[in-house]
Amino acid sequence: MDSTRIAYIAGFLDGDGSIFFQIVRRKDYKLGFQIRSTIAFYQKTKYVKILKFLKRIFKSGYIRHREKGMSDYSIVDPKEVEKLLRLLRPYVVVKKKQLELGLKILQKLKTCKSAKQFLKICKLVDKFGKLNYSKKRTITSKVVKDYFIKNKLLPL
Amino acid sequence: MDSTRIAYIAGFLDGDGSIFFQIVRRKDYKLGFQIRSTIAFYQKTKYVKILKFLKRIFKSGYIRHREKGMSDYSIVDPKEVEKLLRLLRPYVVVKKKQLELGLKILQKLKTCKSAKQFLKICKLVDKFGKLNYSKKRTITSKVVKDYFIKNKLLPL
Repeated sequence: MDSTRIAYIAGFLDGDGSIFFQIVRRKDYKLGFQIRSTIAFYQKTKYVKILKFLKRIFKSGYIRHREKGMSDYSIVDPKEVEKLLRLLRPYVVVKKKQLELGLKILQKLKTCKSAKQFLKICKLVDKFGKLNYSKKRTITSKVVKDYFIKNKLLPL
Repeated sequence: MDSTRIAYIAGFLDGDGSIFFQIVRRKDYKLGFQIRSTIAFYQKTKYVKILKFLKRIFKSGYIRHREKGMSDYSIVDPKEVEKLLRLLRPYVVVKKKQLELGLKILQKLKTCKSAKQFLKICKLVDKFGKLNYSKKRTITSKVVKDYFIKNKLLPL
């Protein structure tokens, strides 16, 4: 892809996009939780064309129409998220910390083999709460830790 | 300036910026009105660094801190607005219509010599109301026309 196009997307993400990681409850997962990565682009529905243009480029993710005439385009596949973060890395300014933290988490997830390691990664995910000023974050590393101890996945 | 930097700024503007033109009342102006051009970038005050970075690049405009932890960086000097619009022209996607309309207005303003010509330009400015879905637009070309007729600046 042309470097000015990548830089444009980095600017678009910095202006009105989001990089965020969350811990989500997954009963079908061995450890009971999953770490979900998301890159999201927001735009008024009347300008949904630009989101469709991004989707055509990335060939991943989905567009949703929200309330108040807003739409978003989200990519959650960890491989795609990593690819995109690496691509945008030289150009992102505002969300630089989120980008670097995201790449660190994705890297660590690849070699994660124990509840203890997973919990460490969850602590990195906690940092997204502060970086993005998110208020709705209910599942923190503390919740995961308590669950692990209760279910004997971690030593006391 | 490096083309990826310009493309980044175009993306940033498309994501969360604005290009708008307004008719403003100016009692000290011969025709009683001025056409004001604005390029604005918005960002959370905690990320004001990116706005300062843009201001250092453009050496024009001003940063203001607004309510709810938001800040904006606005450029209103018509010469600077034109320079910037020309610079961003190859990369802007979402706000392409605003950009082209803005350049057209700035071009016409340079050779505007009569109330009649000014009124024509005001009609172009009216189009920004629709393009940007702005609701607060009170001074339209109609208001200017009525004023011109009342003050005998235009033939009846």
